[in-house]
Amino acid sequence: MTISREGTNLDPWYGHYADRTSGLSASEVRALFAVASRPEVVSLAGGMPYVSALPLPTITESMDRVMRDRGATALQYGSGQGTPELREHILEIMALEGIRAGVDDVVVTTGSQQALDLVAKLFLDPGDVVLAESPSYVGAMGIFRSYQAEVAHIAMDADGMIPAALTERIASLRAAGKRLKLLYLIPNFHNPAGVTLSSARRLEIIDIARSAGILILEDNPYGLLWFDRPAPAAMRSVETDGIVYLGSFSKTLAPGFRVGWALAPHAIREKLVLAAEAAILSPSSLNQMVISDYLDQADWRGQIDVFRGLYRERRDAMIEALEQYLPDLSWTMPNGGFYVWVTLTDGLDSKAMLPRAVKELVAYTPGTAFFADGSGRGHLRLAFCYPPPAEIREGIRRLATVVRGEQELLETFSPTGPITAVAYDPHVASPPPNLS
Amino acid sequence: MTISREGTNLDPWYGHYADRTSGLSASEVRALFAVASRPEVVSLAGGMPYVSALPLPTITESMDRVMRDRGATALQYGSGQGTPELREHILEIMALEGIRAGVDDVVVTTGSQQALDLVAKLFLDPGDVVLAESPSYVGAMGIFRSYQAEVAHIAMDADGMIPAALTERIASLRAAGKRLKLLYLIPNFHNPAGVTLSSARRLEIIDIARSAGILILEDNPYGLLWFDRPAPAAMRSVETDGIVYLGSFSKTLAPGFRVGWALAPHAIREKLVLAAEAAILSPSSLNQMVISDYLDQADWRGQIDVFRGLYRERRDAMIEALEQYLPDLSWTMPNGGFYVWVTLTDGLDSKAMLPRAVKELVAYTPGTAFFADGSGRGHLRLAFCYPPPAEIREGIRRLATVVRGEQELLETFSPTGPITAVAYDPHVASPPPNLS
Repeated sequence: MTISREGTNLDPWYGHYADRTSGLSASEVRALFAVASRPEVVSLAGGMPYVSALPLPTITESMDRVMRDRGATALQYGSGQGTPELREHILEIMALEGIRAGVDDVVVTTGSQQALDLVAKLFLDPGDVVLAESPSYVGAMGIFRSYQAEVAHIAMDADGMIPAALTERIASLRAAGKRLKLLYLIPNFHNPAGVTLSSARRLEIIDIARSAGILILEDNPYGLLWFDRPAPAAMRSVETDGIVYLGSFSKTLAPGFRVGWALAPHAIREKLVLAAEAAILSPSSLNQMVISDYLDQADWRGQIDVFRGLYRERRDAMIEALEQYLPDLSWTMPNGGFYVWVTLTDGLDSKAMLPRAVKELVAYTPGTAFFADGSGRGHLRLAFCYPPPAEIREGIRRLATVVRGEQELLETFSPTGPITAVAYDPHVASPPPNLS
Repeated sequence: MTISREGTNLDPWYGHYADRTSGLSASEVRALFAVASRPEVVSLAGGMPYVSALPLPTITESMDRVMRDRGATALQYGSGQGTPELREHILEIMALEGIRAGVDDVVVTTGSQQALDLVAKLFLDPGDVVLAESPSYVGAMGIFRSYQAEVAHIAMDADGMIPAALTERIASLRAAGKRLKLLYLIPNFHNPAGVTLSSARRLEIIDIARSAGILILEDNPYGLLWFDRPAPAAMRSVETDGIVYLGSFSKTLAPGFRVGWALAPHAIREKLVLAAEAAILSPSSLNQMVISDYLDQADWRGQIDVFRGLYRERRDAMIEALEQYLPDLSWTMPNGGFYVWVTLTDGLDSKAMLPRAVKELVAYTPGTAFFADGSGRGHLRLAFCYPPPAEIREGIRRLATVVRGEQELLETFSPTGPITAVAYDPHVASPPPNLS
C-alpha cells in the first residue's frame, strides 16, 4: 500500500483518487443542515418542504393498496426508465405547465438531483463550461464541478437571467476557446434568487441557446407552487429538441420517496436510460407505485393548493418581518417556491456573520454557497418553507439583532474594519445580481 | 444547433456528448429482461430474487408503523450518509460474515449498484485499469466503462480468482505502464461464475493487493444465501484499510427498496458521502426506515433461512436437470447465490444460439455479457433464483433441445461451419475460466 509522504495526510489512498475527486468538498448548505437541526435554532437555511401538511393516512392507504394488490411487483427490480404508469402521471403533471410529450420521453430518477447528475455525466468533459444564473443552485454546481466542468454565471435581475448578458458571455467564452455545453436554468421561483424568468425572456433565451447550439437544462421543481399568479409556461412547452427538462415529486409531494424525472429529446433520452441503469439498475418500484396510486386515488391537485396557501402565508410572514425589522436591507419578492434572496447593506459579510447568527439561534444560507467562485458575501438566502409564520417572524427578529450588531461594529471600526467585510469581491466572475 | 453531418445520425446533439458517453451501450442482460418478461418464456436469464417468498403483510405492517409514528420524518430529506438506525442494523448484518466496523464507516446508497458507481467515480480516471474476475458482473463492468476505465480479467477456477494469475497480471500491466486502481471481486457465489473464493486465497489476494497498493472492492450481495455450508469470512473481516465492502438488501430482503451500502476506510468514506450527496442528496428516508422497522420487528434471520432453503431447492433442480438433459456440458456447482455457469461443448456459440433458445421459450444470459472484450461465447449463465423447480426443469429440457439442434448442425456442416461458432475466441484477454 502506498503511504502518502505528506505528513498531515492520513489517507493511505491519497494519490489514488481520480482527478475529479479533488473538486469534491462539503457544501455550505450541508454543514448548515447539521446546525439547523438543533431545535432551539430557527432555521431559515434548508429548503425542506413542510411535509407535515400532507395527508399521511392517505399516503399510507396507497402503500397498503400497492402492497396488497401488487406487493411482489413493488418489491422487485423494475424498468430502468421507470414504470409506464408513473410516466403517464408525470405527463399529466407537466401538462399543467404547458408541456406536451410522450410517455417514452420520460426517465424516472432518484430525485431530480440524479437526473442532473446523469445529464452532467452524459455531456460534461473536464474544462467544459456550464452557463448558469448568478447566483445558482448549490447542488447543481456541485455536480458540474464533480465532472470537472466550469460554471460561468450570467447576470440576472428581477425578471431572471438577462438575455443580453447571456449573449455577451457566450461570445466572450467562445472567443476564449471554451466549449459551452449546457445552459442551466431554474426559470420558476429561483433557488436561491426567488425570481421568475419572464415569458418574453424565455423565448429570447431559447433563441440564443438554439443559435449557439447549447443544450438548455430547465430545472423546475417549484413551478406548481405559485402564490399570486401561475408561472409562465415552461420553456419546454415551446422548444422540444433543445431542452432537457427536470421535474420532481420532492416539493409537490414528498422528498422522502426520492422520485424525480427528466424529459429529454429522443436520442438523449435513450442515453439517459442507459446511464441511469448503469448507475442504479432501476429506481424504486415500490416508491413509484405508491406515488402512482396516490395520484390515482387522492386529490393531489387540491394538496398542491394546500401547499400553495401554506407557503404563501409563510412568504408573507417573512416579507412583513423583513419590512418591520430590516427595512434598510433589500430583497426579492418571490411569487412562489421557497426562497427570498437578501442583499445586505454595504460592508456586511453573510459568511462571516453566520456564526454570530447561529449564536443568536437563527440560521440562513450565506450567498457564497450559490456562486461557483466564492463570491456572494453581500447576500444571503432565506427559506420560508419549513418554519411556521410565528417562527419565521422570530427568526427575522433575531437576524435583525445580528445585522444591527454587525452594522454597529462596521461603523465603529470603519474604514479600518475587517478585510472580509467588503460588499464587492474582486474575484466575482460576473457582477452580483441586481435584484431589487 | 449543430446538426451532425453523418447522414444516419439523427441526434442533433451528436458531437456534444462527453467522451465517456461513447462507451455507453445497452447491456445484453438488459435486452434479455424484455424478452424474458413474456409469460410463456422460462427465464433463466435475469437475477431477480423470488420476492413472493417474503412476508408481505409483515413488511406492510412496518410501513404502517413508520408512517403512523414518524411519517413526517420518513417523507422528508435525510442524511446523505443514511439513517444512524439503519447503519446500526447494517453492522449487525455484516457481523454475520465476520465484519466489525463502526456506524460512521457505513454509507447507505440507492442499491449497492450506486455504491459501485460512486467508488468508480472517486477513483477512476480515463485509461485506469480495474482488475476483475474472468468472467465478472456485467453491471460493474458497465460502470467502470462509463468512467472510461479498462477491465483486465484475471483467470479463476472452482476456488475463485487464481492468486498467481493476479500477481502475473499486475506485473505485466505495470510493465506496460498501466495505472491499476481497483481489484473488483465477488468472493461469494460469484455472478456469473457461481464459485466461491477459498479462505486461503482470500488471504493471498489481500496480501497481493496490499503489496501492490491496489484498493479491493469486495462486492457481497449473496454472502448470506449459502446452501450447504456458510461462506468463508468476508475479506473485510481481516483487512480494513485496503477494502471498500459493498452490501445490499436486494437479495436478503427486496430490490424494490433500492437500498444497499458501502463500508469504507475513514478517508474514503468521507469522500463517498460527499459524492453520494452530490448525486442524490440523500437516500430514501422512507425506505430506510421501513427496512429498519422490519429488521427490528420481524424474524429477518428466519426469512433469510427461508430464502436459503428455497434457492437451494432450485439449485438442486437445475443441477439435476442439467445432469439429466445436458450431461455432455460442464457447469459450476454453486454453494449459494443465484447462478450456474455453463461451459458449452466445442463449437457452440451462446450468443448466436440465444434467438433459437427464445424461440424454444427458454432464456439465458450469453457468456459474452460477462467479459469486457466480448469473449465468452463458449459459456452461458443460468439463474435459478426466480422460476420454481418444475419450471427450471422444463427450461433446461428446452435448452437441451436447442443445444442438441446446434450440435447436429455443427456435425452436419463441420468443418465448414459458421465462423462465429468457435470455442476459443482469439480476442480473449485472459483464458476463459477453467471451471469444472
